[in-house]
Amino acid sequence: MKLVTFSTGNSTGNADRVGVVTGDSAVQDVTDLVPGGTLLGAVERWGEVGAILTDQAADRTPVPLADVRLRAPFPAPRRNIFCVGKNYREHAAEFGRSGYDSPDRSEDLPDRPILFSKATTAVIGPGDDIDPHAGLTSELDYEGELAVIIGRGGRGITREAAAAHVWGYTILDDVTARDLQRDHRQWLLGKSLDTHCPMGPYAVTADEIPDVTALELETAVNGERRQHALVKDLIFDIPELIATLSAGLTLLPGDVIATGTPAGVGIGFDPPKFLASGDVVEVAITGLGVLRNQVA
Amino acid sequence: MKLVTFSTGNSTGNADRVGVVTGDSAVQDVTDLVPGGTLLGAVERWGEVGAILTDQAADRTPVPLADVRLRAPFPAPRRNIFCVGKNYREHAAEFGRSGYDSPDRSEDLPDRPILFSKATTAVIGPGDDIDPHAGLTSELDYEGELAVIIGRGGRGITREAAAAHVWGYTILDDVTARDLQRDHRQWLLGKSLDTHCPMGPYAVTADEIPDVTALELETAVNGERRQHALVKDLIFDIPELIATLSAGLTLLPGDVIATGTPAGVGIGFDPPKFLASGDVVEVAITGLGVLRNQVA
Repeated sequence: MKLVTFSTGNSTGNADRVGVVTGDSAVQDVTDLVPGGTLLGAVERWGEVGAILTDQAADRTPVPLADVRLRAPFPAPRRNIFCVGKNYREHAAEFGRSGYDSPDRSEDLPDRPILFSKATTAVIGPGDDIDPHAGLTSELDYEGELAVIIGRGGRGITREAAAAHVWGYTILDDVTARDLQRDHRQWLLGKSLDTHCPMGPYAVTADEIPDVTALELETAVNGERRQHALVKDLIFDIPELIATLSAGLTLLPGDVIATGTPAGVGIGFDPPKFLASGDVVEVAITGLGVLRNQVA
Repeated sequence: MKLVTFSTGNSTGNADRVGVVTGDSAVQDVTDLVPGGTLLGAVERWGEVGAILTDQAADRTPVPLADVRLRAPFPAPRRNIFCVGKNYREHAAEFGRSGYDSPDRSEDLPDRPILFSKATTAVIGPGDDIDPHAGLTSELDYEGELAVIIGRGGRGITREAAAAHVWGYTILDDVTARDLQRDHRQWLLGKSLDTHCPMGPYAVTADEIPDVTALELETAVNGERRQHALVKDLIFDIPELIATLSAGLTLLPGDVIATGTPAGVGIGFDPPKFLASGDVVEVAITGLGVLRNQVA
């Protein structure tokens, strides 16, 4: 099932709705069928809600997707987004070479997942503008990523059990202010400026993705392909990430784990190709749609 | 005003109450006077709530503090705790020397605040046990810290305006699994194991602290003084931290910023003095009480 958080017309504030997408072109409003009227509420009680939606969503009058404003699946996540650094081989090398992984310049692969977070207030939806924060950074970069949405929470989740804790998937652009990332050493600030976490367009349940490792990720800037990789090329795969994170940290329903970006980010080029106002970033993943955002 | 989140008797689940502490020995239950019945609700609407509590708390029958279980001021924060690394001179040097600031071994002072986060699920209250996570880490360490609680949120907060955004203060123990902190490079995981964010005992409003820089912090392990510093020794002071964080990231009411730990953590000793089961960690700050937790 493909779910979205959306708003209609000129609604503002807390007017977010939950919808089921049909045929990639229409959405059925199921807000009243999910606990709390939010996608998080649906994910938390998916055991019951999934069946209800399967049963009843089709009765709702479809509204053309073009008539609604899609929001991030979780416009205000209950905590920071978990992220993974240097999790594709060639990207680990390009980042090491770039000199931005201060003070490290190693092109070696990490032997443990590099885990950090993005602040909740950075989240925006598909179609929303990326704020370049001109006075604050002059080195704005994109990072197209597959993001995992946790369904059933827990601690001590084994590799083998991990799949049972995955509710589904979405696309995330781990927008990064490279100068802040480098200068502040730990990455939180350089990864957390407002609007620097585009997410969506859809939240797709795991049952729609028979083999997540077969998914193909592609990032284009102004139509020029910059990143292209298969999820199977992850250094630490999704079961490993869930096992590592949850070994001593309780994962919660609705937690989002951005799994890392492949080679081809702006600092991977010489000279670097940073984002500028007007640039359009499109991250596409097989079956998950296209996340498109313009730099304001 | 000194506020607490607490539970009574054998209550479980969502039974947290909000109280005003009087004379350091009793608490007046004001849960029904604050929005949502939570301290976060009180902080979000402090303009109105502060006056109501001043007016009406005294009418409530005081309950001895000894008869309630104190919880963290925010038992489930709305997002990760903001933290600052290497923010006291001598601690920056001891951490550099220790070899745990992988791959960096510099004893130089940072020229920008080092910002990272602790996951919400790590939060515990005063008196709660610290889980040593024996199978996962063998290098458990303490870090006594002053934490700032944001009242009015915002972005682009200047140094000069920062004080107006501070609701108050509490104590935080930034418990750290040093091996995980080192091996995973970014610090999120090593800082976020369950129970590794003791917080409290009180949330004290800023008006009770005429000069925050005069506060004295002391950490003792099993009664042996390990850390002792004045808040004025912070490399990046509180206005600077708020200005840096909020330059491009919207701060929210209830955000907690742990300001960094002084010299004297376990890895500052040769050989290191890691925590072991049964150890009692006490972090005391002038006017904010004592945060006491035992390692289980």
